[in-house]
Amino acid sequence: MYPDPSSITRITSIGAGPIGGGWAAHFLARGYDVTAYLHDASESDAFHAILRTAWKSLTDLGLAAGASLDRLRIVTDLEAALDGAEFVQESAPERLEIKQALYQRLGLILPTEVVIGSSTSGLMMTDIQATCATPERCVIGHPFNPPYLLPLVEIVGGEQTSPEAVAWAGKFYEIAGKAPLMMKKEIPGFVATRLQEALWREALHMVANGEATPEDIDIALMNGPAPRMVSQGQCMAFHVACGAGGMATNLDQFGPALKLPWTRLEAPELTKELRDRMVDGCNAVAGDRDFEDMAAQRDREIVAVLNALRHSRGG
Amino acid sequence: MYPDPSSITRITSIGAGPIGGGWAAHFLARGYDVTAYLHDASESDAFHAILRTAWKSLTDLGLAAGASLDRLRIVTDLEAALDGAEFVQESAPERLEIKQALYQRLGLILPTEVVIGSSTSGLMMTDIQATCATPERCVIGHPFNPPYLLPLVEIVGGEQTSPEAVAWAGKFYEIAGKAPLMMKKEIPGFVATRLQEALWREALHMVANGEATPEDIDIALMNGPAPRMVSQGQCMAFHVACGAGGMATNLDQFGPALKLPWTRLEAPELTKELRDRMVDGCNAVAGDRDFEDMAAQRDREIVAVLNALRHSRGG
Repeated sequence: MYPDPSSITRITSIGAGPIGGGWAAHFLARGYDVTAYLHDASESDAFHAILRTAWKSLTDLGLAAGASLDRLRIVTDLEAALDGAEFVQESAPERLEIKQALYQRLGLILPTEVVIGSSTSGLMMTDIQATCATPERCVIGHPFNPPYLLPLVEIVGGEQTSPEAVAWAGKFYEIAGKAPLMMKKEIPGFVATRLQEALWREALHMVANGEATPEDIDIALMNGPAPRMVSQGQCMAFHVACGAGGMATNLDQFGPALKLPWTRLEAPELTKELRDRMVDGCNAVAGDRDFEDMAAQRDREIVAVLNALRHSRGG
Repeated sequence: MYPDPSSITRITSIGAGPIGGGWAAHFLARGYDVTAYLHDASESDAFHAILRTAWKSLTDLGLAAGASLDRLRIVTDLEAALDGAEFVQESAPERLEIKQALYQRLGLILPTEVVIGSSTSGLMMTDIQATCATPERCVIGHPFNPPYLLPLVEIVGGEQTSPEAVAWAGKFYEIAGKAPLMMKKEIPGFVATRLQEALWREALHMVANGEATPEDIDIALMNGPAPRMVSQGQCMAFHVACGAGGMATNLDQFGPALKLPWTRLEAPELTKELRDRMVDGCNAVAGDRDFEDMAAQRDREIVAVLNALRHSRGG
């Protein structure tokens, strides 16, 4: 029912803000024809400013063959903006009544084989699609800011979304140069924001208690966890840091530390099931790479990141 | 009373594990004479293996003039290892009774003007120094793993530590090529581990609830928050993402989101005082840079990081 994701060439991006503009820039850089729907022509200047800023970075990252800002069309009539669209990225304001009114119209205007991805970070697709006559092709496709630079797109459907549309979106975003995360459940904050929000709230607690300043928080992150996290994430960082024993050693040996007051967040109970999920998950990612290989890759990547930052900062 | 931190040339590193070995490698790479104290000669092979691994990365990062592995001396007698030491980095096993027995001896052997920095990640200096006859020069100097790559050192004293020793350690570590974080209070987990631990426990909750796999967690971090966090931390990331309004806009507009279930960690109350601390702290870091400058710097740095990783991965 849905077209081959690699056959898509025409995308409509809805929204004039940093997210809508960032998506438009990203798709243009990957060589798509992009129609941007702006609610009002007065938004055009700010929209073009976002595109200009994004294009500089996208050029430095490398443009796809044929990619051009000339392949952008700006339209302020919704029906005209959707005409010929093969995929729609929706980045309208984050208010449920606005999204619902929009999806009601999208559901009637767009052919049913056109998948709609929503950039929402705070709303659930189950709620957004409630007013849509064709809700089965509506999915979350949540980017991380700035969307023209950070590869992540979190993908999940609402209760009325078809599994086929969700799977199609995962394939499409990957072809379009993104790093898709296929979510297992529709949860508030999705995955990345939940992780970031836990860290953020602990930071606010520390500032509230006079334990750290905002500057301290950022010094700690930039020089400690972040250069390793960009290379390995957090699960594999612990897996590799524990040597040949990996995540099993981490949890069996340091599991009791989960009860220590190292954050205001209470840990879940470390059941046998949770322990095995973590261990099996890390082993699956590791595949046939051994500990030394992964530690050496981590070190090469951290060195590359630190040298790149130093060079970028003129050091 | 303490010597000029820039006059230090001879360092003793205590501990044969990845942290002690990593510190020895780091100090050698910065051009110091290093004496490594190993508890037992049988640890020597593993210690040399850590050094060899670290040295490759340290060479890629750039060695200080005169830096050489030949300036390492390995000693298994504690008194001999401390002879002539001008600074001591202690990375003994993480058990309080071992540390206390060690600091009792260090306190008697080392001249009082020699500062001792402890790599402990889980113990409090107030407890470690309890058995030391000269506790005023004992500080925490907590690195992040791997210590030969990640710049962060968290610095804080115990109840008996003199403020002069803490300030001295901050200057010394900076001269020695580290990024010192002067902690405001002696708290469990210090700053960086608390932030990481909040994220980690939220990750465990998600895996326990079938909301994400370990692989999902890492995909989310590596492609979402981490490339931005390595450039800006988290406070400045939000400050810059909110445009000219900065952190004030973030908290005034999105403050209510702190009550949403975006993590299992309950946020602190957003008092006027906390709001102002966050806003003033971010404004202080920003200095006279405006929003556009900082956003452009963020984008340059994320591009540099993404390109460095891609290149390192052969992409």
